[in-house]
Formats: sequence, structure tokens, C-alpha cells
Amino acid sequence: MRLGLGLSVQHPPEDPQATRFAEHVAQVRAARAAGFSHVWASQHYLSAPYTYFQPLPTLGRVAAESGDMALGTGVLLLPLHSPVDVAEQVATLDVITGGRFIFGVGLGYRDVENAALGVDPRARVGRLEEGLEVIERLWGGEPVSYQGKHFQLRDVRISLRPLQQPRPPIWLAANADAGVRRAARLADAWLMNPHTTLPTLERQLALFHEARAAAGRAPARAVPLIRECYVAPDAKTALAEAKPFLEGKYVAYRAWEQDKALPSGESFAHDFETLARDRFLIGDPERVREEITRYHARLGITDLIVRVQWPGMDPARVLRSIRLLGDEVLPRLV
Amino acid sequence: MRLGLGLSVQHPPEDPQATRFAEHVAQVRAARAAGFSHVWASQHYLSAPYTYFQPLPTLGRVAAESGDMALGTGVLLLPLHSPVDVAEQVATLDVITGGRFIFGVGLGYRDVENAALGVDPRARVGRLEEGLEVIERLWGGEPVSYQGKHFQLRDVRISLRPLQQPRPPIWLAANADAGVRRAARLADAWLMNPHTTLPTLERQLALFHEARAAAGRAPARAVPLIRECYVAPDAKTALAEAKPFLEGKYVAYRAWEQDKALPSGESFAHDFETLARDRFLIGDPERVREEITRYHARLGITDLIVRVQWPGMDPARVLRSIRLLGDEVLPRLV
Repeated sequence: MRLGLGLSVQHPPEDPQATRFAEHVAQVRAARAAGFSHVWASQHYLSAPYTYFQPLPTLGRVAAESGDMALGTGVLLLPLHSPVDVAEQVATLDVITGGRFIFGVGLGYRDVENAALGVDPRARVGRLEEGLEVIERLWGGEPVSYQGKHFQLRDVRISLRPLQQPRPPIWLAANADAGVRRAARLADAWLMNPHTTLPTLERQLALFHEARAAAGRAPARAVPLIRECYVAPDAKTALAEAKPFLEGKYVAYRAWEQDKALPSGESFAHDFETLARDRFLIGDPERVREEITRYHARLGITDLIVRVQWPGMDPARVLRSIRLLGDEVLPRLV
Repeated sequence: MRLGLGLSVQHPPEDPQATRFAEHVAQVRAARAAGFSHVWASQHYLSAPYTYFQPLPTLGRVAAESGDMALGTGVLLLPLHSPVDVAEQVATLDVITGGRFIFGVGLGYRDVENAALGVDPRARVGRLEEGLEVIERLWGGEPVSYQGKHFQLRDVRISLRPLQQPRPPIWLAANADAGVRRAARLADAWLMNPHTTLPTLERQLALFHEARAAAGRAPARAVPLIRECYVAPDAKTALAEAKPFLEGKYVAYRAWEQDKALPSGESFAHDFETLARDRFLIGDPERVREEITRYHARLGITDLIVRVQWPGMDPARVLRSIRLLGDEVLPRLV
């Protein structure tokens, strides 16, 4: 199984942001030394109560440290952008990373982002579907003419093709069942989100495989999952150190109405222990290894992207968690 | 005078693009060692017949090598973008560079870019002016409400403010007289373009200073100029080595209708020697030093951004030119 580091680019606004950024660079170096396979940066705008580093310049910067690891957007909010812009930005990143880019995209769920960037929320699905189609065709390198509802192009040919041929992998994040089916049709993989519990993921993954077969597509080669994860030398320390920060983040998520975007039957309205069950990977190395093995057994995951930091956390603990994952957990995984 | 390196991110499409990108990284290291003060990456889309690296991830990547040098967009095509997006991208780059970002923007002039990104070319000026106003207000950190013709915001507050307070410098590129006056009103500096000859720049700079005084603004502290520049150990070699590549680039510019965007009286329809006069800095170190001194005497430039590479050129010659600029030209400048 490949392990990925999801950079947690949100911080309290009163923090020294350049220091926080330098810590992300150190985390990427630690992940590389620890045997991780990929590093991810995600996208949000207007992310009060926290700051947020935008993924395109962030991934450009950490590409200097990432060696053989892949880099990816986990995820870019595709409906907010012009597909021509995204096609060229990602092609540039694919060249910068030596052909090691994974293009993770999602719909987004926050009305404030759509409104501020001038996108009608009702157009999100259409813009995502058309955007993916246009980007794939542009990456092919031939002139593209396209008459969509949201995007129109006449003989448009991008400057720079990605290094990977025919193109970088496309991983589509989705929470709702309809989104999972969309990922089966349009993407190379469904990027399973960190908020949904294992039983619901199991149900939805069956939908994904069915929808993929129904669309006449080969089984997905990558089955990637994002999880919140914290490893400490012993279980009690792990829980005590993670809980205040992870709890804070989930309070912010509820204020963001992320819980609105959850699949049916899922909710954030739980105490921490209930929230953690089937959702977070927290503990000593052995406990986290067992949990990962359980996800692997039930979902067949090929890639696990861990988010190991929440706003306000001691950066030394984040590095320790990354090192423990590399030294104690990764070598004993299937 | 501060010297800046304008990265020439266009290459023949058949070139190995990852190698070309690695050469840009080496150029940034060389510029840093040679005493340059800043590094620039510009923006175009659909830039056939050449490839083009997009500036946001490019500047992110070279920030790993740039040390105390500033980084800048020279220029970002602002009308093509949402101001909320740009405000957050540039704030991220300002943090990544430790507060050393210069925000260079321009209108753009290519209809194919506007059409492909869904922008009405007639809206360019309005989108630039409103975009700059919105970005400045967003960088202030307070919630912004704005009812423009092109952009509407209600209580929008960005995630991350730039490190520089109140904000990064804004340098506005402009070719036509109206654009120069706009730069005087809206920006901290007019970024003088590489295509206009010295006599025309001199006439337009007077306009700029007048318009600035008329707007009740303090004189600009930066007077930056972009030039094509090539230094070799002797003048004959410099001309012979630069000419074929620079000529090729200007043929491409004419096909791009860049010449449509020139100020009145300016044209690219000349033989190379006429094109070079009052426009390119080519020669041995002494000749280039004299030329820069002449620009300095007539324009009072504070910053010279040199573009030292054109598509297809031997990368070793580019590095030699950067080193000669640092070793032989820069120490003898005013």
C-alpha cells in the first residue's frame, strides 16, 4: 500500500504563516525520508476561521523536496476554474514534478466560495463534468472545439502538454452516491473522503464498482482513501494530543456546512469518541497499523492519504507522527 | 540599480520540457550567485508555436532557490482571473517567498486567450481596474462588499493575507498611453515593456509622471524596465549568438499580433539591426553596461529586468550571459 501525506495547510491567522509554511516543507522532507509515496495539497477559499495556502504555488514549492514522491491536488475545486487555465497549470506541475502529478478534483460544497468566484452553485456538476472532458481533450494536444453549456472553445490548443502520456491520473472526490457514480464514469479513481465512516464507504465502493462495470470501464487501478491520522508512541498520548485539535477542526467543518455534503446516514453531530470510530486513525503504531489493515481488508485500498496535522498543533508532534508512520507502521503494512 | 532575471518560459514543443524547467532552476541559482535582486515569470496561454510554463507553480518551485531575491509575476494577465482567486494565490506566494513578492499585472492583448478563458475582450480594462481594487481591499483583511460591473462580492474575507503590509507592490505593465496613465493612477509602478524603443518610453514616462502628479499621488519609488539582453565575451559573438533566436521570437510576436498592442509610432516591421536599436541590450559587458547607463540616464530606471533566453537557445550560453551580467556589468552600474 502506498502512503501519502495530505498537507494540512490551514492555520490560526495569528500564527506566523511563513514559519507554518516552512514546517510543511520540513514535513515533506520527513515524509520522503519515511518512505511515503505522495504528497497532497487541497483547495479552499475564504477559509475562516483558518488561513489556507493555495495548492498550485504550494505544490510548486514542495516539488523541490519531493524526490520520487508523486504530488497531487487533493482536491482542486474544478467548478471554480476555467478548464483551459487548469489544463495548463496542471501540465506545468506535471513537468515540474518530472511526470509525477496526480490530478485530484472535487465539486466543492461551500456556497461562499462559489459566490465569491462568481459560479452559480447549481452549475457545479455541469462545470465539473464539462471541465474534465475539456481538460482531457486539451491534454491530448490537438486543437479542441467544444460547445458545452458552460464552456465553449473553438480550435483551442494548449501550450504545454503534461509529461505523463496520455495524461496524469484523474482522481475524483465525491461524498454523495451520485458523485460516486460520476467518479466511476469520469475518473480513474474515486478519492474516498476523510469524513465518511467505513461502513458507508464500503456500501459506496460497491456502487462505484457496479457503476464502473455498467459504464464498460476496466476496474479502477487505484482505490485511494483520505483519513485523519495521528500516531504517538502510546495510545493514550495519541488520543490526548490529537483530540483537542481534531475536535476544533470538526467544529469548524460544521460551521462550514461540510456535514451538509455527507452521504445519507452520516453526521458530525457526535462526541469525539463516536466521531473517531470508523473515521479517524489515532493511536500507537500497532493500533494504527491494525486500523489501516482493517480498511484495506474491507475496501481494498491501494493508497492511503493521511492528514496528520490540525490547526494549532505543535509541529514537532506532526513530524514525530510522520516518522512513526514511516518507521513503525509502513513496513508492517500489507 | 537592481537587476532582475525574467525567466523565458517558452520553448520549442519538441524539447524535453523537464530539462528546460531544470535549466530555469539553474538560472535562478546563477542569478542569485551573480547578485541579481529579483526573478520574474510571466503568463500566457495557448502560446503556440512555443510551450509555456504557468507562473504560479513556476514561481512556487523557484522560491526554493531564490534566497533573498524577490519573485514576481511579470506579468499576470489579470482580466482573465477572478480577483478572489488571485488575491489568495499571491498571498500564498508572498508567504512562500518570505514577503518578497512583487505583483506585476497586465491587460493581455491576445484575443485567443480571452476567448478560451471566456472573457469578453471589451471587458478587459474594466476587469483589470475592478480586479485591482478588489484585490487591494481583500488584502486589507476586512470583509469586502463590492458592486462592480464585472465583480460582485458580499462580505468576502480572504483566508490568508500577504506577509507584506499593507500589501505587495503592484507593478502595472502598459504599452499604450492610456495604459500608462492607468498605471499612474492604480499601481505603484509602471512596468515598462521590452518592445517599446527608448525615445517612446521617454515620452510615455513623462506622461506617467504627469498623470501621477495630477492624481495627487507621490512619485513612484520604482521605475522598472524589461529588456531583451544578451552578453557574451565580445560584441560580435553576442550578436551572432543572440540574433537567430531573438529574431525567431519577434517573428512569433508578430504572428501573435503583439505589434497591434504597441504605442503609436512603434513597429516590429524592421530588419534585426533596426529592431535592436534602442530596444535590445546585446554586446560585450562594456557595451551592455553603456546601454544600461543610457537607459538609466534618460529614464531614471531603478530596476532592470532582463530576458536572456529565447526559444531554442543553448542553455550554457544563457548561464554565461547571466554570469557576465553579474560579474562584469552589475558591479560597474550606477
